[in-house]
Amino acid sequence: MVRGRNLTAELIGTIGFTDHFWLLVTGSLPSAAQRRVLDATLVAIAEHGLVPSVVASRMTLAAAPEALQGAVAAGILGCGSVILGSSEAAGRFFAEIAARVGGSRDVESAATEVIGEYRLGKRAIPGFGHPLHKGFDPRARRLFEVAAEVGCSGPHAEIAHIVGKLMPQLVGKPLAINVSGAIPAVLLDAGYPLQALKGVPMLARTAGLIGHLLEEQQRPIGFVMSHAAAQAIDYDGETPSGFESGESA
Amino acid sequence: MVRGRNLTAELIGTIGFTDHFWLLVTGSLPSAAQRRVLDATLVAIAEHGLVPSVVASRMTLAAAPEALQGAVAAGILGCGSVILGSSEAAGRFFAEIAARVGGSRDVESAATEVIGEYRLGKRAIPGFGHPLHKGFDPRARRLFEVAAEVGCSGPHAEIAHIVGKLMPQLVGKPLAINVSGAIPAVLLDAGYPLQALKGVPMLARTAGLIGHLLEEQQRPIGFVMSHAAAQAIDYDGETPSGFESGESA
Amino acid sequence: MVRGRNLTAELIGTIGFTDHFWLLVTGSLPSAAQRRVLDATLVAIAEHGLVPSVVASRMTLAAAPEALQGAVAAGILGCGSVILGSSEAAGRFFAEIAARVGGSRDVESAATEVIGEYRLGKRAIPGFGHPLHKGFDPRARRLFEVAAEVGCSGPHAEIAHIVGKLMPQLVGKPLAINVSGAIPAVLLDAGYPLQALKGVPMLARTAGLIGHLLEEQQRPIGFVMSHAAAQAIDYDGETPSGFESGESA
Amino acid sequence: MVRGRNLTAELIGTIGFTDHFWLLVTGSLPSAAQRRVLDATLVAIAEHGLVPSVVASRMTLAAAPEALQGAVAAGILGCGSVILGSSEAAGRFFAEIAARVGGSRDVESAATEVIGEYRLGKRAIPGFGHPLHKGFDPRARRLFEVAAEVGCSGPHAEIAHIVGKLMPQLVGKPLAINVSGAIPAVLLDAGYPLQALKGVPMLARTAGLIGHLLEEQQRPIGFVMSHAAAQAIDYDGETPSGFESGESA
Repeated sequence: MVRGRNLTAELIGTIGFTDHFWLLVTGSLPSAAQRRVLDATLVAIAEHGLVPSVVASRMTLAAAPEALQGAVAAGILGCGSVILGSSEAAGRFFAEIAARVGGSRDVESAATEVIGEYRLGKRAIPGFGHPLHKGFDPRARRLFEVAAEVGCSGPHAEIAHIVGKLMPQLVGKPLAINVSGAIPAVLLDAGYPLQALKGVPMLARTAGLIGHLLEEQQRPIGFVMSHAAAQAIDYDGETPSGFESGESA
Repeated sequence: MVRGRNLTAELIGTIGFTDHFWLLVTGSLPSAAQRRVLDATLVAIAEHGLVPSVVASRMTLAAAPEALQGAVAAGILGCGSVILGSSEAAGRFFAEIAARVGGSRDVESAATEVIGEYRLGKRAIPGFGHPLHKGFDPRARRLFEVAAEVGCSGPHAEIAHIVGKLMPQLVGKPLAINVSGAIPAVLLDAGYPLQALKGVPMLARTAGLIGHLLEEQQRPIGFVMSHAAAQAIDYDGETPSGFESGESA
Repeated sequence: MVRGRNLTAELIGTIGFTDHFWLLVTGSLPSAAQRRVLDATLVAIAEHGLVPSVVASRMTLAAAPEALQGAVAAGILGCGSVILGSSEAAGRFFAEIAARVGGSRDVESAATEVIGEYRLGKRAIPGFGHPLHKGFDPRARRLFEVAAEVGCSGPHAEIAHIVGKLMPQLVGKPLAINVSGAIPAVLLDAGYPLQALKGVPMLARTAGLIGHLLEEQQRPIGFVMSHAAAQAIDYDGETPSGFESGESA
Repeated sequence: MVRGRNLTAELIGTIGFTDHFWLLVTGSLPSAAQRRVLDATLVAIAEHGLVPSVVASRMTLAAAPEALQGAVAAGILGCGSVILGSSEAAGRFFAEIAARVGGSRDVESAATEVIGEYRLGKRAIPGFGHPLHKGFDPRARRLFEVAAEVGCSGPHAEIAHIVGKLMPQLVGKPLAINVSGAIPAVLLDAGYPLQALKGVPMLARTAGLIGHLLEEQQRPIGFVMSHAAAQAIDYDGETPSGFESGESA
């Protein structure tokens, strides 16, 4: 039995893995629309190239090839507040705005208020802006399209849209929504629980890590990357003169 | 671009997460039959109750609630040779038999030969027998059914079947195939690569761990379990008298 | 070269491991008094029986015996804010009080002010009280004695003492200092840097974990503990009726 | 009580951390000579610059700064068979030779026999040769000196010495002993248990990792190194043309 359902008779061969993940997290099976949205977000962030956690994971496999699980774990450990945590932070930001809408207060004024509080607390607005993609992150745009296609667009997508429009005026520069902002917006509109948002990028990245590690077993680059990383520090001047002597034996 | 495909235009909203995992691991998209088989195996092993890695993971979250990723990683670290490694070991066992079939050698004689070598090397036959399920593991049976339904049954399922029949004669007792044996059999028949077998239980268990950890955040049992675990040692006599004094401060 | 010193000529065989740790963390070698204090704190917390992180670590080794490093890592992951983080939290608490002493403000009034702020923010006073040891934790007492013996007692020990005396009046019950409070007090008085406090329990616990894991290799209890932990949940009533069926397959 | 001793009365403030580690691992306190040897080995390998596990650990802290324990764990996970496992492998190699000495068989003939078996099994001789240090690794030389100074030189150092002399003749090239060979030789001669050898580099590296991570908190280089690592792959030609497009989104 899993979550009150007979694993063999009702689940294996009947539902897909995405349905099963939704079931494990929420206790019930998703609708077709909910599955489409969750699938889209998992696909959008599973693989993003040689990001820090992937680099760390491949180096770990190079150093300890006897334990694939150790290299996966090392990669998961890099899924923290800076990298993947922004999805959850953006979800909390949208939910805070949503909670204040009502009565005479529309989204625009609720958003203005919450953004003002973030600015006062010197907190970045999570889910907006991207170091690489100027303008609208194409993955974010696609996620909103998918949500609209399956009829799941709702208040959080609207909030994300309005926050984007308020950015120049309230923050002083145009900051478009990024994939970490689009993910919670479409998931929350689909009825996925706020407190489970962190699980989505973590599951997605595990799939990406496994792909990378199987590649590492066949085409090893872990030591090449480690060497390049160490070399970069010798030359970039970010470490004072004492560092080189201090760090190499 | 992911694996030669445009992430935004071709993948997000078009394919499911299971397809994406197959793509990341193999470089191409699965057929509908391949997806069904992979989904069935992922669903079959995602959640298996309070197994050691789940217990360790929940205790870790209780002790370090600031880092969900740390608790997921702790759970992944328990996905090693004893627990989840048997799927890969069984896959290698089946593949070894399959490689020897041909010419005048049928499956039965190839299997007899390989089993003989395992016995000689005092190695357990991986993928057979189960501490709880006497007789046929219902999850294993269901996986073979699903593979047959989608037309994916092939040589590895046949080998698994024949090995099961040979067991009483060659090993001296009836050992039915278990879920760790069925998973590689149906995956290999579906064309999933042998060297990537370890990835399947690892991805599945990550989904299960995330489900458990979200539950731990709401209904904490980590410290209760830790206390019970420590208490069990005080009383079960498995530790010599010096132990209790040695282990508590 | 390590930290400006010739590893072979100056360090190996000349200094002890405790000196080396102090060197790696601070950039200079400790005095004899500083070494005594650091040694005392490391010894005091290296081993504390079957605490959650040790239990999780031993279970991980049972499940994945091929990777000792994985089991050590799993144990380290449980050294988070709830368990070992209190040493650092207590250090910040003492440092905050110390920073406000001066001019007409004595320790008592600075402590009263800071404790008042903690109470207002509903934060526990870190480093005081203990679930097991009623009254003064003997390890804490011994650490203060050692610091006094080597002439390292200073403002932070005094603050810890005064806070302890203020407890009944300000918090409403007598809460004695515990080992997590004594460690930062004596280390800060010895000149060990505040921002490196977390490193001390982490290094100490690694030694304890290694001791436990070598024992696990010879006298395995990981699966016994895991079983007891899972059993405890079946019977303790902390989980709703849906849980048992939901968690076992 | 720890290992039958009163923690407060007998250990804290009385023994050093190195003694305590020996106690936790062996159950008894070391002699002064044993402590000197263990200290020397721990100091010799605690810090070795920006090696893969350190790079992975610093990247992990950059990505997940909320969890120092996660970054330590990520670094520990890279202490596997390739990097730090060679100490244990060399220890087993020396112990195998030692076990065959006796009667008419001297060290030279026992070593020749064991080396022959390693060669036949295409196994590298562990503990000899070094990518950077041509000739004798100065740390290895120093460790043997320290062991001699404290009167701990014994059969394993002799075996290491004789194996070094046999290398040109049996392996075809001069391969000097390295630090991973010297560590088990001197530890085994000092009476440190073979099965606990892995614990020494792991504890030492934890100290080194903590030093690096405290530095990372103050002078971050994790993302710089990650970027350099990713860049190195774009240009070094080790990945086929499909890789760049496949790995970046």
